[in-house]
Amino acid sequence: MAKEAPVNCIFCKIIKGEIPCQKIYENGTTFAFLDISPINKGHTLVVPKHHCEDIMSAPEKELQDLIVVTKKLSVLIMEAVSADGINIGINNKPAAGQVVMHTHAHIIPRFSNDGLKHWPKIDISNEEMVLIQQKIVSLL
Amino acid sequence: MAKEAPVNCIFCKIIKGEIPCQKIYENGTTFAFLDISPINKGHTLVVPKHHCEDIMSAPEKELQDLIVVTKKLSVLIMEAVSADGINIGINNKPAAGQVVMHTHAHIIPRFSNDGLKHWPKIDISNEEMVLIQQKIVSLL
Repeated sequence: MAKEAPVNCIFCKIIKGEIPCQKIYENGTTFAFLDISPINKGHTLVVPKHHCEDIMSAPEKELQDLIVVTKKLSVLIMEAVSADGINIGINNKPAAGQVVMHTHAHIIPRFSNDGLKHWPKIDISNEEMVLIQQKIVSLL
Repeated sequence: MAKEAPVNCIFCKIIKGEIPCQKIYENGTTFAFLDISPINKGHTLVVPKHHCEDIMSAPEKELQDLIVVTKKLSVLIMEAVSADGINIGINNKPAAGQVVMHTHAHIIPRFSNDGLKHWPKIDISNEEMVLIQQKIVSLL
């Protein structure tokens, strides 16, 4: 079961209107607003209204609603800011860069000349790839 | 409507078994396998079986299936590689780093000491934030 929302969750307060935001969209389950510290103009956060900490603990239905709104807004945001592409990112746990512990999808507009670099690849042997695959599959 | 799959789509060939992969999971609509050039060990790609280019053009139902499998596998992958966090990423269009033009979600395990840096923030005025919000909302 999802844990109870912490009383100081900033996203719960934004959803309830207790903290102001640049609201983009709202439906019965999902809320979207501009990221106050954007990576590029138009950077938007999409969040389930019901508090859940991350994708691992979120109910499937809320994630399904989240991705549908994320798709819908991605189309509009691309047009609104004349972007050349869109990155969707969901960071889970502080080690992955999650700062607010309420599940959220970043919609980050990209521009051909924005200079943002993607992460480098690691070297890994075929043998290690097989071991990792077997370990994951053994947990299914 | 979704466009017809291009005959040389590498992910369509992986799904059909025409190109080998380290398969992780498959159900009626969705397929997952290890990224051949991982950012961290356990880096997995989750793809709709039906060809669609990106999140903007993908049918809602396929995205809903994709996110449910992504959640399910994120839990297992965290455990399998003893990760401290998980980044989910969906890159749309070449300007956003999309290389294979068949919608896919990256599941990237993260480790507290892995040294991967997130993108910097831009400076933006409140006035520009309001203009961007109004432009997006006007397209709803």
